[in-house]
Amino acid sequence: MAFIDPTQWSKKENYQFLTTAVTPRPIAWVTSLSSKGILNAAPFSYFNLISADPPLLSVSIGRRAGELKDTARNISETGEFVVHVVDEDNVGASNETAANLPANESEVVKTGLTEKDSHRVAVPSLKESRIRLECRLEKHLTFEGKEAMTDVIIGEIVGYDVDDEILTGDNTVDIAKLKPVSRLGGKQYASLGAVFEIDRPN
Amino acid sequence: MAFIDPTQWSKKENYQFLTTAVTPRPIAWVTSLSSKGILNAAPFSYFNLISADPPLLSVSIGRRAGELKDTARNISETGEFVVHVVDEDNVGASNETAANLPANESEVVKTGLTEKDSHRVAVPSLKESRIRLECRLEKHLTFEGKEAMTDVIIGEIVGYDVDDEILTGDNTVDIAKLKPVSRLGGKQYASLGAVFEIDRPN
Repeated sequence: MAFIDPTQWSKKENYQFLTTAVTPRPIAWVTSLSSKGILNAAPFSYFNLISADPPLLSVSIGRRAGELKDTARNISETGEFVVHVVDEDNVGASNETAANLPANESEVVKTGLTEKDSHRVAVPSLKESRIRLECRLEKHLTFEGKEAMTDVIIGEIVGYDVDDEILTGDNTVDIAKLKPVSRLGGKQYASLGAVFEIDRPN
Repeated sequence: MAFIDPTQWSKKENYQFLTTAVTPRPIAWVTSLSSKGILNAAPFSYFNLISADPPLLSVSIGRRAGELKDTARNISETGEFVVHVVDEDNVGASNETAANLPANESEVVKTGLTEKDSHRVAVPSLKESRIRLECRLEKHLTFEGKEAMTDVIIGEIVGYDVDDEILTGDNTVDIAKLKPVSRLGGKQYASLGAVFEIDRPN
């Protein structure tokens, strides 16, 4: 066994270890609008559900050189965003939107993605996803480290916009049709492997 | 396309949809100590990293009939816990610890798991995991819905205890050796599928 004290490691070393130790991570492909109306898109994998009642999710967004990333700043200013689920068909496009564009350039335009109106928020959604979770900002937390700062965006999901071909009769998503893709460390992604069931204990 | 307003769905319907829509979710197998010294273990999949500097993670724990679950209450009282990574070898045991035992009974004892001392926290770890993240409580949030309440535990990771056979030279975990298992909806789990790389854009 190896014991590592994270304070003895650099930020990069901790990042490399943690992103390969906590896997697979679901990917939130987030659209947000700047105050000037530029539609931003970017993928984040420090993401998960918080609760079903109310429907809440959380996305963590690291700052770049102390500055809020476009997504965090837009959500902070407008209070709205849309989380798109990443699958085998759109993972390439979602990865392209990780480019570091200036705030006045749209990853959606550059990547050639297709906007569609959302139902409950002013932020447009992307047609290139089969599940779109329309969100309003519920809580914005910040955490500060030695070299880094992180914005944690907790959103209430106010609408589910779903391709009904992947929905089953009992309000669940057919995972075999969705083909979700997850994030590992470095440049690595993973498709879903064997699905198996284990009964819950009494 | 189907548009669903979550307020028109029951808590159960929202839960069924969300747990199949946001997948695959990594699993935190958490040990915590009660104020009476009972070692609790339980798995949670509303879990992810928050940042690498400081090393932070988040685990959401739904209340049962308004009462904090043992894990949330223990962490709230003692300020410490250990997150174990779930893999193909321990997924069965981790699932067994999801049993609803009284607070004075230990899932660790009932499941026949093996305790080991942790390095930075008083809460013992489980030998049945290759990665143990020793944590101190950083922030405890609560969210209230119509029928449910949720405790969100944000922990600072103060120690990594890792089987060095799965560590590579550059501080990363070899995913092919770790074989992490993730959570889907209902009784479903998934192993990791094909791993592929996509270059980050400039």
